Amino acid sequence: MAEAKQLSGAGLRGQSAGETALCTVGQSGSGLTYRGYDIKALADQVEFEEVAYLLLYGKLPNVQELQDYKARLKSMRGLPAALKTVLEQIPANAHPMDVMRTGCSMLGNLETEADFGQQHQHIDRMLAVFPSIINYWYNFAHYGKRIETETDADSIGEHFLWTLHGKQPDPLHVKVMHASLILYAEHEFNASTFTARVCASTLSDIHSCITGAIGSLRGPLHGGANEAAMAMISQWQTPDEAEDAIMGMLARKDKIMGFGHAIYRDSDPRNAIIKAWSKQLSEQVGDTVLFPVSERVEAVMWREKKLFCNADFFHASAYHFMGIPTELFTPIFVCSRVSGWAAHVIEQRANNRIIRPSADYTGPDERPVPGLEDRD
Amino acid sequence: MAEAKQLSGAGLRGQSAGETALCTVGQSGSGLTYRGYDIKALADQVEFEEVAYLLLYGKLPNVQELQDYKARLKSMRGLPAALKTVLEQIPANAHPMDVMRTGCSMLGNLETEADFGQQHQHIDRMLAVFPSIINYWYNFAHYGKRIETETDADSIGEHFLWTLHGKQPDPLHVKVMHASLILYAEHEFNASTFTARVCASTLSDIHSCITGAIGSLRGPLHGGANEAAMAMISQWQTPDEAEDAIMGMLARKDKIMGFGHAIYRDSDPRNAIIKAWSKQLSEQVGDTVLFPVSERVEAVMWREKKLFCNADFFHASAYHFMGIPTELFTPIFVCSRVSGWAAHVIEQRANNRIIRPSADYTGPDERPVPGLEDRD
Ligand SMILES: CC(C)(COP(=O)(O)OP(=O)(O)OC[C@H]1O[C@@H](n2cnc3c(N)ncnc32)[C@H](O)[C@@H]1OP(=O)(O)O)[C@@H](O)C(=O)NCCC(=O)NCCS
Ligand SMILES: CC(C)(COP(=O)(O)OP(=O)(O)OC[C@H]1O[C@@H](n2cnc3c(N)ncnc32)[C@H](O)[C@@H]1OP(=O)(O)O)[C@@H](O)C(=O)NCCC(=O)NCCS
Repeated sequence: MAEAKQLSGAGLRGQSAGETALCTVGQSGSGLTYRGYDIKALADQVEFEEVAYLLLYGKLPNVQELQDYKARLKSMRGLPAALKTVLEQIPANAHPMDVMRTGCSMLGNLETEADFGQQHQHIDRMLAVFPSIINYWYNFAHYGKRIETETDADSIGEHFLWTLHGKQPDPLHVKVMHASLILYAEHEFNASTFTARVCASTLSDIHSCITGAIGSLRGPLHGGANEAAMAMISQWQTPDEAEDAIMGMLARKDKIMGFGHAIYRDSDPRNAIIKAWSKQLSEQVGDTVLFPVSERVEAVMWREKKLFCNADFFHASAYHFMGIPTELFTPIFVCSRVSGWAAHVIEQRANNRIIRPSADYTGPDERPVPGLEDRD
Repeated sequence: MAEAKQLSGAGLRGQSAGETALCTVGQSGSGLTYRGYDIKALADQVEFEEVAYLLLYGKLPNVQELQDYKARLKSMRGLPAALKTVLEQIPANAHPMDVMRTGCSMLGNLETEADFGQQHQHIDRMLAVFPSIINYWYNFAHYGKRIETETDADSIGEHFLWTLHGKQPDPLHVKVMHASLILYAEHEFNASTFTARVCASTLSDIHSCITGAIGSLRGPLHGGANEAAMAMISQWQTPDEAEDAIMGMLARKDKIMGFGHAIYRDSDPRNAIIKAWSKQLSEQVGDTVLFPVSERVEAVMWREKKLFCNADFFHASAYHFMGIPTELFTPIFVCSRVSGWAAHVIEQRANNRIIRPSADYTGPDERPVPGLEDRD
């Protein structure tokens, strides 16, 4: 293997790996569009279910379509008994992304996609049931409680908060969930989506594609960043303390989670949106620490490194203000991104060739196999 | 999306997506080398555990290392109670690759990789326990039998057959398993391995990487081909009947499973090796149908299309002669390839940049979001 890290060209950065009609990143509008609609307009004007429908069915739903879609999703929230039993086997100290991954994989055993004609049904089911999966486990593992997962919630975001906390959530929180799920829904050929597409290219089933994507999103360089950002900022009591700490981390060349991006160069358009919601939530809860600390970190990172907050940074404080445990941050990302992943799977299947790149070989030349007794 | 399928350049074919010291495909020797050793020499001269050690630890083991390695693997075959409970929830009609995927994912909940310093321990554990997982489920789901998974088998291949059939296997079969597992162990940046590397590039855990890879291998364009080949050849009673059927399939432009390859152009070096074993097994069982049928299919495909058998085609008959149910063929592939996948994860982690390609946008131009009431 190469001694030194060769960054240029590594990670397929800037190389096209296929086509998509779903999303542009850093190309037009504020920097992120879903099927031509700017992320800011979507986050301001529509509900998450409209975005999911847009990605999966190709158009924004009209009144009737939206009503039908929400009713269909609502009817799909229940957990099969075997899946509950599986979730009950998972210990409280497990990584919640491992729970999501296992829950999704198990669902594939119980409700297998027999042919691609059924893809939409399975995808809608996953959208509907993922909040049930994570919060059933969470409540059982931590409090021994077997929760009811068929809530009256009007939306996926509300269903998440309802199943987590066991009560109808604050209307402001429901609004924030819509915005948050919209921001996280889709992001072109990011690592987890690309994982789903590689899997889809072997013509594997939808649960395999989504299970694989969950595993990739789990990584701290990807979806795991919002949790890592929370762990970081919650250490500091004042903006000055945060600034000192960040300066030290930068001096030690630590990576600061929630900053930087593989594609965006100057800003992540999702940041302003979630930051505004985080500010409003901080006022609601009377916070005087976390939001100011976060703002200071943002300012210092820009001043020192021209690094900007990505979507994850202000999500940390926003979720925290809504009473969501840090370890459930990335699972919420899953509840949203499953829409984008699945839309990419549909797209890959419609125009497929197996994704099979080559590699540059850096190993030993050909050599004879020594006998067992002749080896060092 | 593009109207017509644009094949050239699609699927990253021929594009380098990184470096590897593990394997060459179509470059030297008979066409496939693991760390410089030709596949034919390995399959003829060593055991699968030597190849796994080579891939994972960088050298062929000496006498002491091999003995220690086999003893360590042998000690790791037991299933945790929670994993057994999970496997018992999976119905008999589930897809065995979904069982492998779920079993691997569940293991990650019970034995989580807390830091990469533990990677070898978790990888060895997966190598040792995967045959236990699939055959525990298989025997429970089909016969209601809770098998003992801590067998006295000397090797992974023997352990697979032993847990499947509940008795010490025929020595010839153990030999064939060594060869088969060696042939399947590693194959550069194929789709499932590439899935594992994309996942690893987010710095996710080893169980996520392997779970994702299993999902990709499941697809009929990839690992699923050996099962599909078996389903196909078992329909025919004579070589002439097979020839007629193949001619018809070719006329209808059907894909013939077990033929063709993304990289090899004239032959797959693994084919001659497994074909020879299949022949020997066919003589052992006194077969007069399946092997001759397979040979005819091979001849016709070459005559008509210059398409050659890949590794999967003669694996179908070979596994069948050993009494392995067709639906367990791809899980055996997993029990082997986990060595290659894991070696790639180790390599990716040692020199990482997140794998995040770009895409060519083919969707609509930027457009305003219409109000809910104003939509078609
Ligand atoms: C997102 C990310 C993975 C993109 O990776 P990438 O495209 O490979 O970016 P690069 O590694 O080329 O970054 C360019 C430079 O900025 C530095 N940098 C990037 N993000 C940084 C961060 N968050 N903190 C400190 N330095 C950072 C890199 O170290 C690199 O410096 P170098 O050239 O001296 O090595 C990376 O910015 C990162 O790790 N961020 C933190 C994790 C995170 O928030 N992920 C969520 C993404 S939505
Ligand atoms: C392995 C495989 C996925 C490689 O895919 P690829 O690199 O995209 O190969 P291509 O699709 O470019 O193949 C070139 C041509 O041969 C044809 N071809 C390839 N494999 C074929 C097969 N098994 N049966 C019939 N035709 C085949 C393709 O249709 C294509 O013809 P076209 O140019 O008229 O469309 C492909 O050969 C295949 O699907 N094989 C069957 C599944 C299988 O055995 N997989 C196990 C691989 S180890």
